[in-house]
Amino acid sequence: MEARGGIDLGGTKIQAVVVDGDYGVVGEARHPTPRDGGPAGVAEAMAGALREAAAAAGVEPGSLAGVGVGSPGNVDDAAGTVSRARNLPDWEASFELGPALAEALGTRVRLGNDVQVATDAEHRLGAGRGYTSLLGVFWGTGVGGGIILDGEAWLGRSGAGEIGHMVVKRDGARCPCGRRGCMEAYAGRAAMEAHARKEHEHGTKTDLFSIMRKHERERLTSGIWSRAVEKGDHLAKHLIERAVEALGCGVASACNLLDVEAVIIGGGMGLRFGEPGVERIAAAMQPHLFNDANPPDVRLAALGDLGGATGAALLVD
Amino acid sequence: MEARGGIDLGGTKIQAVVVDGDYGVVGEARHPTPRDGGPAGVAEAMAGALREAAAAAGVEPGSLAGVGVGSPGNVDDAAGTVSRARNLPDWEASFELGPALAEALGTRVRLGNDVQVATDAEHRLGAGRGYTSLLGVFWGTGVGGGIILDGEAWLGRSGAGEIGHMVVKRDGARCPCGRRGCMEAYAGRAAMEAHARKEHEHGTKTDLFSIMRKHERERLTSGIWSRAVEKGDHLAKHLIERAVEALGCGVASACNLLDVEAVIIGGGMGLRFGEPGVERIAAAMQPHLFNDANPPDVRLAALGDLGGATGAALLVD
Repeated sequence: MEARGGIDLGGTKIQAVVVDGDYGVVGEARHPTPRDGGPAGVAEAMAGALREAAAAAGVEPGSLAGVGVGSPGNVDDAAGTVSRARNLPDWEASFELGPALAEALGTRVRLGNDVQVATDAEHRLGAGRGYTSLLGVFWGTGVGGGIILDGEAWLGRSGAGEIGHMVVKRDGARCPCGRRGCMEAYAGRAAMEAHARKEHEHGTKTDLFSIMRKHERERLTSGIWSRAVEKGDHLAKHLIERAVEALGCGVASACNLLDVEAVIIGGGMGLRFGEPGVERIAAAMQPHLFNDANPPDVRLAALGDLGGATGAALLVD
Repeated sequence: MEARGGIDLGGTKIQAVVVDGDYGVVGEARHPTPRDGGPAGVAEAMAGALREAAAAAGVEPGSLAGVGVGSPGNVDDAAGTVSRARNLPDWEASFELGPALAEALGTRVRLGNDVQVATDAEHRLGAGRGYTSLLGVFWGTGVGGGIILDGEAWLGRSGAGEIGHMVVKRDGARCPCGRRGCMEAYAGRAAMEAHARKEHEHGTKTDLFSIMRKHERERLTSGIWSRAVEKGDHLAKHLIERAVEALGCGVASACNLLDVEAVIIGGGMGLRFGEPGVERIAAAMQPHLFNDANPPDVRLAALGDLGGATGAALLVD
């Protein structure tokens, strides 16, 4: 089997990989997602990252069997388009991402949903191997979900997996999506940062923002949250606890509905808090599980940062 | 195709039907579920109801192609057993319901989950015809859920569909299951009655209990709730509104996860409040739907009271 490419398109970074026939990563590159230039500029940066990954693997992009893309927003693989890619700059209207990349790279391009391809990758190659049903929970800027049932991705009418917008507290906290009480309103890193800023402005002591400045960041990254917790920062500890409780509640609710064999925890926050974080989430699920004598296995994603891009490469058949 | 039997085993009543080759009901009987005599006594009453339905249809029970049973609790069709049937008297341990009925009726017996067979019936014969994915929501004493995906029942590891125990309010109201904030804690008729009794004892004015006594009931049935609301009873209206809000929130959360084509609302309360109730639930879902521009169809169950028993008959192949 030929080498193929995979690109994970995120709101802050573009991760590209080239994998061999066994889906082992033989080249990779990471670029920041450009804030200017709109979808065309993003597509250019994606092609650049893939070219760099191909160079690292010692292959020409044009010689790849194809390139898969995991994208946020509404993805239409048949049409090659992505629209309403929320966290990306000026990407509301439909943009022909597939054709743009195919022309730039000289190979065919397949598009998929970012969270679903990461879930597929964990299922086929990572922590989800051997399970026929599982839920992928990607805890990062938001909280995304991917579903595997009977060994296959469940996409619904194309919009399934919005686990972050399951309501865990009716009339609860405001979510970045505009609704109230969503799991993401408590557990999404963006919502957590907004909450921390507000508390800080109102005089709550926290080192979160001084750590952020020290590391020359503009956002509270997963690493900053982790460092603040390690330093015993009260606000950081409180907001992480609040996030874990919301995740436990929402993921348990999903399990009460679907009774899957396993839950795979990934995403920037999930990976950063690692096994201890997964154990805390599993413990937070327990009181809400209807079938509490037979909880699902809860596992840390095994493919790490490269899971999304590797899953995208799986789109190329 | 020969006639077959179906029995819906509920906490308060046993509904039996005999259906023809097109699953049209040609005989039916309803008995109260006996409170004494344990599982064996219940099995005897079930056999009695089925015999009566068969007599009404003019057939011998032994001539039926088989009898299907929709049961609460943990159902093991291969073993013919039911255990932990919560709302039934002294039915914690495993009881060989299949063999007991087969002997009493002289035909083979198939067992299934009560909510799932009612969902299957709506999918194949009722309001769910033509959909390939749907959620059955049975709003009664509790709130049960059945799932159809890709045209087939989704059972998970056998425990799927506990939509009533999806959490809609973390740290919220106490649920009859012992947990907190479940949808059923607000929308289950048992929880609603407990809440109404407490309010009434604490001096809240309500006609709910006088209507109950007038109709010589011991419980607040769906009909009593409906009559009280029609009379403008404030507490009844408030608790129904609270139930509808919880249903809207929990069912929308399930749709955000699964993105099914349709939601079918059944159960004693669902049927009693009918089309206007379904419209209220759909409206209550709307603010919580992530994909609010493309909500699922929300429909009233079409098979009414006989859906469970008819669905049980579908178990006989």
